[in-house]
Amino acid sequence: MRKLVSTITGLEYPFERLEEFAENGEALEVALPGIEHARPRPGAHLWQRFAEFLPFRTMDAAASLGEGNTPLMDAGASLKTLTGIEHLLLKNETQNPTWSFKDRGSLACIFMAREMRESVAATISTGNMGHSIAAYAARAGIKALVFVPEFAPQEKLMAMTMHGATVMKVHAPDYALMKKTVLGLAKEFGVRIVSGNGPIRVEGYKLTAFEMHEQLGGNVPDYIAVPASACGHIRGLFKGYRELLAAGIINRLPRMIVVQAANNSPIVSAIKRGLKQVVPFSNFHTVAEAITTGNPIGGDEIIAKAAQYGWLAEDVTEEEILEAQRLLARAGYFVEPATATTLYAVRKLRAAGRIAPDESVVLVVTGAGLKDLDALKLQPFKVLDSSLNTVRRDLANALREGGAGV
Amino acid sequence: MRKLVSTITGLEYPFERLEEFAENGEALEVALPGIEHARPRPGAHLWQRFAEFLPFRTMDAAASLGEGNTPLMDAGASLKTLTGIEHLLLKNETQNPTWSFKDRGSLACIFMAREMRESVAATISTGNMGHSIAAYAARAGIKALVFVPEFAPQEKLMAMTMHGATVMKVHAPDYALMKKTVLGLAKEFGVRIVSGNGPIRVEGYKLTAFEMHEQLGGNVPDYIAVPASACGHIRGLFKGYRELLAAGIINRLPRMIVVQAANNSPIVSAIKRGLKQVVPFSNFHTVAEAITTGNPIGGDEIIAKAAQYGWLAEDVTEEEILEAQRLLARAGYFVEPATATTLYAVRKLRAAGRIAPDESVVLVVTGAGLKDLDALKLQPFKVLDSSLNTVRRDLANALREGGAGV
Repeated sequence: MRKLVSTITGLEYPFERLEEFAENGEALEVALPGIEHARPRPGAHLWQRFAEFLPFRTMDAAASLGEGNTPLMDAGASLKTLTGIEHLLLKNETQNPTWSFKDRGSLACIFMAREMRESVAATISTGNMGHSIAAYAARAGIKALVFVPEFAPQEKLMAMTMHGATVMKVHAPDYALMKKTVLGLAKEFGVRIVSGNGPIRVEGYKLTAFEMHEQLGGNVPDYIAVPASACGHIRGLFKGYRELLAAGIINRLPRMIVVQAANNSPIVSAIKRGLKQVVPFSNFHTVAEAITTGNPIGGDEIIAKAAQYGWLAEDVTEEEILEAQRLLARAGYFVEPATATTLYAVRKLRAAGRIAPDESVVLVVTGAGLKDLDALKLQPFKVLDSSLNTVRRDLANALREGGAGV
Repeated sequence: MRKLVSTITGLEYPFERLEEFAENGEALEVALPGIEHARPRPGAHLWQRFAEFLPFRTMDAAASLGEGNTPLMDAGASLKTLTGIEHLLLKNETQNPTWSFKDRGSLACIFMAREMRESVAATISTGNMGHSIAAYAARAGIKALVFVPEFAPQEKLMAMTMHGATVMKVHAPDYALMKKTVLGLAKEFGVRIVSGNGPIRVEGYKLTAFEMHEQLGGNVPDYIAVPASACGHIRGLFKGYRELLAAGIINRLPRMIVVQAANNSPIVSAIKRGLKQVVPFSNFHTVAEAITTGNPIGGDEIIAKAAQYGWLAEDVTEEEILEAQRLLARAGYFVEPATATTLYAVRKLRAAGRIAPDESVVLVVTGAGLKDLDALKLQPFKVLDSSLNTVRRDLANALREGGAGV
């Protein structure tokens, strides 16, 4: 029988449970009996091939927007030189339907909503998550309900409303209180509120691990670096590999690299200092907006897993994030600042000898640069102004320069 | 011997020719001898499998950013009902590395630049094209040079400069004169300026046809609807199918549906009125910014092909474009206005009996909605404002509403 299990105490809960965490805030995850006998099988879609690893009883192609099947690319010479890592790969999740990794989790949410005959997909979000849920709910013909804090940027809300989501901006003294109030009401009304590290979305993020397993022909990367806030993405990637190991399909696990902005590093700070509990952050600011989190629920388990499995953790400064965003773009990848955090993190870990020169590292490219155009205002910007009279001279100069022009 | 051939007179030019059009403005296309013997072969990349259909001698995976491999999706019930077309499919090109179809053409440009040992990739662009070229040039480690008119929106220029492109804004009395000046200088300096319907990019757009051929298991759709400005995309899609036919791999051709905004329809107006030449537009405005073109060079050949092959053409009003953008988003697809033009076009063609009820239609989804956030300001936008005191009542109301909330 599939069920939910607390990641810390091992206490069991029904799979159908509406709330995504245990009463004491512990993260829950799906346990599937017989996973050691699960095998990939032929199928057009990734979730069909790995159906025996997934808890959903009805997985209908009509729920899909064509997520996944994203490229796993050689990072190219410039990024290899910068990081000192020769086997550096980029898993480009910006080539998903709403241009972030969130879509894999949203597919899982729709599978769950269909099975439970729920007519509402609800979340609390300021950005990519709300957009993705809104798109998938639209595809499924169910209602999307996105609770947003008052500071949510208007352009992100516009994308949600384009998809027909009902957006409720809840004015409150602070975001934590707003979330608590909304979660309480949702329980009362029988509405499932999905969050970034809930057990259902984690089942969707497992698909990225299965896809990389196929793309690497069964080889396991030494490290997978992921920008982290609530850590659902990291949980999912690692759970996918854990289950492949349990099934005897692979014989070792990758190690995760948890990356946060130094200005907002509740989990990375704890891991680096050898603490067992999240270090809460408040009144912080980071340009890596998509991974801001003050006191991530379920974070203690990530800290425990890091110790148990020898994961690495690193934080990066605001300057490093912006520099990394430029360098990724100069290598062909235009990403949002949160996504750019991993580049300097692995560079520093390599420089400190935590990653060996011959070890392979996958950077998960989580969200498109177009998602956060405000952040571009922090980058240098130069345009050459020419007229019909000066364009000959300016072109000659530009060609003489040779390299990139900015 | 591979060569360039005028699409109207049949005059031949060297494959290496720098200028993309004949002296009299006729479009050129690549002719490959022995195409009737070309066969797909095994390979990891699409361009490897269809290498015998492509003119490039060096196709190196290092040039790729992971373009293509985009989903071909069932359009879903709402769009089928709206258009009256039961076999309606969406080819989602927004899941490319820079989130538009342009990336396939840019890959071809880099193959060409490598073979010719060119160190500059240059274009005249205001948007998606410049962004795509900038990203691919960055990946290839060559210089991107993007000439832009003074009206080019700053955020699009910021994306180009992030990738390290040299952006030259050329102030001139009109865009046509600016283009002519730049093209003249480029010839003088030996710089290849690629444009949307040049023969090299067209070879890249052929790949979409080959990919759909694989995805449909060899079946040929009856119609493929494409937003059109310079028409390179349409040329490429159709050329791919023409070559599959020439090789005896398929036994009929799809018919293309050329779609433009009514406010700016130089090619569609000509086709609908039975004219043989482009109807120039000036001082126009359309929300479908990505397909604006006053007097598209090479357009006469598209008009001739439409007559020869029984293509359809349709234009759409500004209101239809914005409505279609909403309806596509309500079906899960957030696209830019130019992309949304095809929806009402096929609806009107179906209503007029030009498309039969059992015929299959592919809408090519060309560019992401995030590409043009200004256009969202033309859409209705409603957010529910709640406080901690009213959120219970507002949630109850939202749940009672049932359907989409805006």
